[in-house]
Amino acid sequence: MAAEYQAPTADYAFLFGEAFGLDIVARATGGELTAADGADVIAGAGEFAASVLAPLQSIGDREGARLVDGQVRLPDGFAEAYAAFVEAGWISAEAPVSAGGDGLPGAIRAGLGEIWNASNAAFALCWLLTAGQIHALDAAASDEIRETYLTKLVSGEWTGTMNLTEPAAGTDLGAIRTIATPRGDGTYAIRGQKIFITWGDHDVAENIVHLVLARTPGAPEGAKGLSLFVAPKHLVNPDGSLGERNAVTTVAVEHKLGIHGSPTCVLSYEDATGYLVGEVGGGLAGMFVMMNSARIAMGFQATGIADRALQQATAYAADRVQGRVLGREGIAPIAEHPDVRRLLLSMRSEVYAMRALGVYVADLFDRAEQTDDAAVLAMAEFFVPILKGWSTEDAVALTSDAIQVHGGMGFIEETGAAQHYRDARIMPIYEGTTAIQSNDLIGRKVIRNQGATAEALFADIERTVEALRSAGGEVAVRTADRLERALAAARRATAAMVAFGSSPRDAHAVSVPYLMLLGVLAGGWMHALAVVAVAAHESAHEADAARLTAADFYGAHHLPRVHALAETVASGETV
Amino acid sequence: MAAEYQAPTADYAFLFGEAFGLDIVARATGGELTAADGADVIAGAGEFAASVLAPLQSIGDREGARLVDGQVRLPDGFAEAYAAFVEAGWISAEAPVSAGGDGLPGAIRAGLGEIWNASNAAFALCWLLTAGQIHALDAAASDEIRETYLTKLVSGEWTGTMNLTEPAAGTDLGAIRTIATPRGDGTYAIRGQKIFITWGDHDVAENIVHLVLARTPGAPEGAKGLSLFVAPKHLVNPDGSLGERNAVTTVAVEHKLGIHGSPTCVLSYEDATGYLVGEVGGGLAGMFVMMNSARIAMGFQATGIADRALQQATAYAADRVQGRVLGREGIAPIAEHPDVRRLLLSMRSEVYAMRALGVYVADLFDRAEQTDDAAVLAMAEFFVPILKGWSTEDAVALTSDAIQVHGGMGFIEETGAAQHYRDARIMPIYEGTTAIQSNDLIGRKVIRNQGATAEALFADIERTVEALRSAGGEVAVRTADRLERALAAARRATAAMVAFGSSPRDAHAVSVPYLMLLGVLAGGWMHALAVVAVAAHESAHEADAARLTAADFYGAHHLPRVHALAETVASGETV
Repeated sequence: MAAEYQAPTADYAFLFGEAFGLDIVARATGGELTAADGADVIAGAGEFAASVLAPLQSIGDREGARLVDGQVRLPDGFAEAYAAFVEAGWISAEAPVSAGGDGLPGAIRAGLGEIWNASNAAFALCWLLTAGQIHALDAAASDEIRETYLTKLVSGEWTGTMNLTEPAAGTDLGAIRTIATPRGDGTYAIRGQKIFITWGDHDVAENIVHLVLARTPGAPEGAKGLSLFVAPKHLVNPDGSLGERNAVTTVAVEHKLGIHGSPTCVLSYEDATGYLVGEVGGGLAGMFVMMNSARIAMGFQATGIADRALQQATAYAADRVQGRVLGREGIAPIAEHPDVRRLLLSMRSEVYAMRALGVYVADLFDRAEQTDDAAVLAMAEFFVPILKGWSTEDAVALTSDAIQVHGGMGFIEETGAAQHYRDARIMPIYEGTTAIQSNDLIGRKVIRNQGATAEALFADIERTVEALRSAGGEVAVRTADRLERALAAARRATAAMVAFGSSPRDAHAVSVPYLMLLGVLAGGWMHALAVVAVAAHESAHEADAARLTAADFYGAHHLPRVHALAETVASGETV
Repeated sequence: MAAEYQAPTADYAFLFGEAFGLDIVARATGGELTAADGADVIAGAGEFAASVLAPLQSIGDREGARLVDGQVRLPDGFAEAYAAFVEAGWISAEAPVSAGGDGLPGAIRAGLGEIWNASNAAFALCWLLTAGQIHALDAAASDEIRETYLTKLVSGEWTGTMNLTEPAAGTDLGAIRTIATPRGDGTYAIRGQKIFITWGDHDVAENIVHLVLARTPGAPEGAKGLSLFVAPKHLVNPDGSLGERNAVTTVAVEHKLGIHGSPTCVLSYEDATGYLVGEVGGGLAGMFVMMNSARIAMGFQATGIADRALQQATAYAADRVQGRVLGREGIAPIAEHPDVRRLLLSMRSEVYAMRALGVYVADLFDRAEQTDDAAVLAMAEFFVPILKGWSTEDAVALTSDAIQVHGGMGFIEETGAAQHYRDARIMPIYEGTTAIQSNDLIGRKVIRNQGATAEALFADIERTVEALRSAGGEVAVRTADRLERALAAARRATAAMVAFGSSPRDAHAVSVPYLMLLGVLAGGWMHALAVVAVAAHESAHEADAARLTAADFYGAHHLPRVHALAETVASGETV
């Protein structure tokens, strides 16, 4: 039985209004909304998620998505929940104004993303993919496609999918063989098999919009021969009503380790009708908008699944009494045992770091768009693989710790802790494995510019070290010392990585440790910013002590990993 | 579909005959057996395991153990496999000569333990518990119990279980409430509920011997009031034939995350007949023989499950072709991609470290018994919590990496990689959580003797550093440098831990990081010994290059963790 879900509204209020030294919601919206408004949105989403989505989380796991006579059936309650989700306006809340949505700032959307995933990650994938497709079509689609498809996605009437992978084309998209042949009437006939299509079929909305990467006849080999197409499950009549079924069939639904409520489909395109999005040969660039959106959202999913696992472990540890607690009088719950406390603080401090980094990165994209500053955009893009790679890898480890808190009960499925561990494991794989993220990071974002963006980040962190020293106080000083040494390790590792530029196998053999190093460092930076913000309080706020403890713990238990990772990065490939 | 299983015979031949600088099998057996004989035993076990046990591994997972009309039914094939296992003599191979077994040396039994667990961890638990109970009864039982029960366990006709946990007594055994009331005829009436009883009921052998911790009427509170009892599933007639069913019933079989083929039972004792083992009030000491045996065996289980996950990932990576491989010409499998190679080397170097430490510790116990040297016994016991805690924690992380190698296929249950990840997760919990191991380590084995045993270990490692420097060669010198720095970190951490002696919450708040530090260091030491052994070869052996690469990789990727952990240990409790 899964624990109740409570949205982390206080943390978001702090992140929106204080953590970064200003009201970032007000800044992003030109004052139209404030941090307090943002916190209200989070609170509302949290109530919806707790009452509608969270109760379906274990039902989704137990029942799973099933393929019945060629049609995917979702677990009991999913269709009703989806209808309520749309009705409450949570799909359009995500969409930009240009697409007819509410255009909420990125910081708030980060919080929503976490909440949907925390309450029901399998369900949230539908939101995640639809949201990503909205961004992709908004960026590249013709007016006709916008009118026919985008409006229906934003209204939530239809949902979206992302069709990249084929049996012989996973990480290597250039190997895609699905072919789209022009019919001469402006449409294309798509033929091929796509696998691992999340929410590729279902029964919660009347139509599904597949965004498909395919190759046109005679197109060049590799990624530059790929084009992007929209192919609906049901064809759409000129008046917008649904026409006949398109020639795309669901061949199978995978039997997976986790996220059972999310249908992972094998789709067969048998001369299905498709419509070109953007230019012929521009498929990868067009799909990249969706991929980038999905990668950032994976940071929110990591935070969400991690926080749910933490909440469940926290509730168990507060309730369970076992043995005499060292240094405590009378009966105390296991949360007071030093090692259980260590596990809980470890998780709590990691979740805050992930959550804060998600908000920071989402807000950076808003800043980049508003200021049109290439350096800000470069920094935002620098963080995408770090957010995706680091937070998903660490979230997996965190769900394992959450099981540990439960002792033997953690291994019993009915307890609910195991589901998070199973659900989490796909995160470092889909939307680009951690290796793919790290290749993007070191190749395009570190080596290519000789570490310039990394150094700009380090300079930002250095300013926080100075602010910590000005703030003073025991935790602030300790945090400054630790962060300064971590920064030195990160600079050494970056110099090593730049030096590997001429020896790519060395660089790629330690690219994941390098990514993890930057993620751990960024997490430490997020805590350091929180310490600075807390120090600015004239009188103590309720959560101040907990924020300082979390920062101090992160500095003692997580941040030191940078020293190990820096040594690993320096070693290059072991031969 | 799980990959074929191949026992690591070459590694064991190396460990038996070379890695520790002498033939440890010959030493342990007074020359009766040699390393070559040991390797033959391993090869034979490997063939048996590959042909009989490994094919049932995924069947066990899919079918699971079921409770049918009060009787547990095991998956198809388990009963036949158990019969073949007994017939081949693998139960008596484990048992000491004093109990009527073959008395194989610990080093060989370490290898057998790994092999049974690698091929089928759920099945191996039956062996593990029976073996542990054989040791416990051999140490403490009366002649009558030896004759009636021990002989049947050694022959494999009956199997053994370990009954400690109750709903309100998990980690805290002093809270056990099961009561054993003397009937005046030498027997006891046992009443209470025991949970998490592995192989608590099954249909593969005709009788089951439960070893039960219970409290006698009027016994003192806490652990010192516990006594140990044997309670068979079926009572035994004076002539040794089976009598009526004892009053112990299987109330439930748990629905678990993994090891589905192993029945985890809730047993209800309703005035079941039991026989005292050892003295009244001496239960914990008697059970500790079984617990210690089981903890060491958990090291072998960790190595086994980890190696199976590694073998599966290795086979997949050697087969799967995807994308152009950096710095390689033509078509190459993904095993050649730098990051996949990193993951494989990471797992391979960890598995070797665990395997070697398992052999080392098992052999230390033999040495302690043969030399009657208290310092050797103290060292052997020092390593038990480290072997159990470190290798099980790292094995869990390793099975996650093994999934990562498979990309999206790793998340699909049919691939088989996910089973190892699910099966592994219980290891850091049962037979004493990692926190319990770390409490044992720091309390009884570090702080109590002011770090004396730890320092004896560090002195041993220092001698290996010197041997590396004498050996020379690029990897040896690098390994010496790394090990020397790691040793300094371990000494600092140990000094911090000893200093925490007067501040127990500080000590216990970082006891798990300290245990992990020593495990990582011990793993590095095992690789260093291998480098020294390889350097002694007059002409290169086939596996030499791979052994050096593994040692070098471990030194670059795993050993640096000690620096992060030492910093964590120094911080004590974060408040």
